[in-house]
Amino acid sequence: MARKIMRHTIQVTLEKNSYPVSVGSGLLQEPAIFMPHVHGHQVCIVTQKNIADFYLAKVLSAFSEYQCGVIFLPEGEQHKNLTEWGKIMTILLEKGHDRSATLIALGGGMVGDMTGFAAACYQRGVNYIQMPTTLIAQVDAAIGGKTGVNHSLGKNMIGAFYQPQCVVADIDTLQTLPPREFHAGLAEVIKYALIRDIDFLDWLENHIADVLSRKKEALLHMITTCVSHKAALVTADERDHGVRRLLNLGHTFAHAIETLSSYESILHGEAVAMGLCLAAQHSVNLGWLTTTDLERIQSLLLTCHLPCELPLHLTLEQLMTAMKKDKKNQHGKLTLILLKKLGEGVCV
Amino acid sequence: MARKIMRHTIQVTLEKNSYPVSVGSGLLQEPAIFMPHVHGHQVCIVTQKNIADFYLAKVLSAFSEYQCGVIFLPEGEQHKNLTEWGKIMTILLEKGHDRSATLIALGGGMVGDMTGFAAACYQRGVNYIQMPTTLIAQVDAAIGGKTGVNHSLGKNMIGAFYQPQCVVADIDTLQTLPPREFHAGLAEVIKYALIRDIDFLDWLENHIADVLSRKKEALLHMITTCVSHKAALVTADERDHGVRRLLNLGHTFAHAIETLSSYESILHGEAVAMGLCLAAQHSVNLGWLTTTDLERIQSLLLTCHLPCELPLHLTLEQLMTAMKKDKKNQHGKLTLILLKKLGEGVCV
Repeated sequence: MARKIMRHTIQVTLEKNSYPVSVGSGLLQEPAIFMPHVHGHQVCIVTQKNIADFYLAKVLSAFSEYQCGVIFLPEGEQHKNLTEWGKIMTILLEKGHDRSATLIALGGGMVGDMTGFAAACYQRGVNYIQMPTTLIAQVDAAIGGKTGVNHSLGKNMIGAFYQPQCVVADIDTLQTLPPREFHAGLAEVIKYALIRDIDFLDWLENHIADVLSRKKEALLHMITTCVSHKAALVTADERDHGVRRLLNLGHTFAHAIETLSSYESILHGEAVAMGLCLAAQHSVNLGWLTTTDLERIQSLLLTCHLPCELPLHLTLEQLMTAMKKDKKNQHGKLTLILLKKLGEGVCV
Repeated sequence: MARKIMRHTIQVTLEKNSYPVSVGSGLLQEPAIFMPHVHGHQVCIVTQKNIADFYLAKVLSAFSEYQCGVIFLPEGEQHKNLTEWGKIMTILLEKGHDRSATLIALGGGMVGDMTGFAAACYQRGVNYIQMPTTLIAQVDAAIGGKTGVNHSLGKNMIGAFYQPQCVVADIDTLQTLPPREFHAGLAEVIKYALIRDIDFLDWLENHIADVLSRKKEALLHMITTCVSHKAALVTADERDHGVRRLLNLGHTFAHAIETLSSYESILHGEAVAMGLCLAAQHSVNLGWLTTTDLERIQSLLLTCHLPCELPLHLTLEQLMTAMKKDKKNQHGKLTLILLKKLGEGVCV
C-alpha cells in the first residue's frame, strides 16, 4: 500500500547557484533527495549532540561509501562566534578535507549559519547542504544564503552571502523540537503573513490549533507557504538591497534586544515577536494600522506563547542606541520595516 | 612643462565586478584614480607602520571630507591569521563602520589578503580597494580577488574569492622597498615569463640591470606585462578551476616550504623561487625542458638574488608530505604545474 506522499519542492532561482528546497515528511531517510547534490567523495556533517541523538544515524547511513566526518557544535547562540567557527576550520584541515568536500548542516539556525559560513571560507569555498531541524531554520534561516557568526558588538556582523546546493526540510524533525523553540519559530511564520500574505494570516488564525499540536498536514502547508515567500524574495533580491529587506520586519528591534541580552536569556524568535509588536505599534502611531490590527497580531503571538512586551531590564532608549549599530543602517540612517497595512510591509 | 605621463590601465573583466588596475608613477597622489570607486562616506585604511610612514599621509589627504579610520596590522606573515583578522572586525565595529564603508588595503600581499578577506565578511561584504606597495602584491596578490588568512595547518586555507573595486599600483612605492622584498617579488615576475611569455623572459634577461636598479621605465613595462597576464588568466577563470591554475607554477612546492618554515624564516617569493626550480627540474626529468633551459632559469633567479636550493633543514620527503595537504589537491590527487617548454606552463 502506497504511503501518502507529503512533500513539495520550491526552487530558489538565482543568476548563479539556483537550488531546490524540499519540504516534507521522511526526507532525511531518502538519499535520492540530497545525494544528487553531493559531489566529490568527502562529506562532513556539522551538528549538535541533541540533534545527533535523533537524526545523525539517518543521514550517516547515506554516506557509508564516503569519507564522512562529524563535527559537534556546542549549544546556544552565545557559541555562534568566530572562536567556534575557527574550530570547524581546524577540524576540517585535520581530517584532510579538500576543495571537493561537501559540508552538511544538520540542525537549527545556528548550525546552518556557522556551517554555511565555514563552507563559504574553507579553502575559499566548498559546497554545503542545509538540513534544517528547527521551525525557524526551515522557514527562514536555511534558505537564502545568509551565513555568518555574531560578534560581541552585534549579531551576524561577520559572514557571507553563500548559497547551499540544496535545502532538505524534513518536517518530521519538528516533532522532537522543544515547545519553546517551536513557538519561537512561529514568530517568523507570522512575519511572512504580515509583510505579504493576508490570506495566510487568516489561515494561521483558523488553523493555529493544528499548528500548535504539530499536525503534519498543517505543518507542511505552513512551511511550504513560508518557503515560497522566502524563495520569491531571495530570487528578486539576493543581496538584500531591495524587497528582501521586508524579511527584516521586527528584526532591527530583535537584533538590538538580543545584543543587549548577550544572546543568552532570549531566543531569536522570541525577540522577533517583541520586534513585530514594536513595528506594529510604530505603524499604528503612523496611522497605517488600526489598534484592532495591532491587537490581532498580539493575540496570534500570545496564542503561540510568544512575548509581546520587552523584557523588564530593557528600556526603549537602550534599544534605540543599539539599533543605530545595526548593519542594515547606511550613512547613519536607521532603516525600519513597518506595515502599511496587514499583509503589506514597507521599508522606511 | 608637462611631466612625462607614466601609467597604464588594465581591465580585469568578469561576469560581475569588472575593475581597472592602474599601474604607474605618482598614482597615490592622484585621487582621480581611485575616488570614483569610493561610494558612501566611510573609509578605513588598513596598513602597517613601516608603509604608513611613507605613504599614509598621501592617501589620507584624499579623504579629509570622509569618516576615515586607520588600522595598523603587525608585520610578518606569521600574523596573517584569524586572530589578527578578527581584530580588524572588532575595530570596524567599534568605529561604527556600516555596509557602505570602503576598506583600503595600503601595503603588501599580507595587508591586501587580510583586508580583502575582512571586506568579504564584514557585514557580509563591503567594498575595498587595493593599493599594493610591494612588487609581489603589484604583479600578483592584489589582482584577482583571492583573499584570506593562513592556518597553522596550511597557507591561505581560510578565505574567499572577493574582487576589489579597483587596484592602484603606484610604482613609486617600490623605491622604498627593502632589497630582499624587491628580489622576492621578481620570482613572481619570472613565473609569468615561464608559464606564458618567452619574449618577456628574453626582455627580463636583457633588462635585468635596469630592473634591479629600479629604473621607472623598466618597472612600468615589467609590472604592466605581469598585470596583463594576470588579468587575462583571472578573466578566463575567476574561480581557479582551469587556466588560472598555471599561476601556481612553483607554488605547491612554495606553500609546503612556507608551512614547514612556520612562515617566519622565508619570504613567499623566496619559496616561490625554490618552487620554480623544483618544477623546472621535474620538467627536465620528464624530458620537457633541457638542462640548458633549467640553467637559464636558475641563472636569472640567482641574478635576482633568489635562492634555487631548499633550505638545509628541509628534505624533499617532508615537502611531499606537506604538499599532499595543499588545497589545490582534489580526491587525494596532487596537481602540479610544470613546464612543457619555456613560456608554456601545463597542469598535470
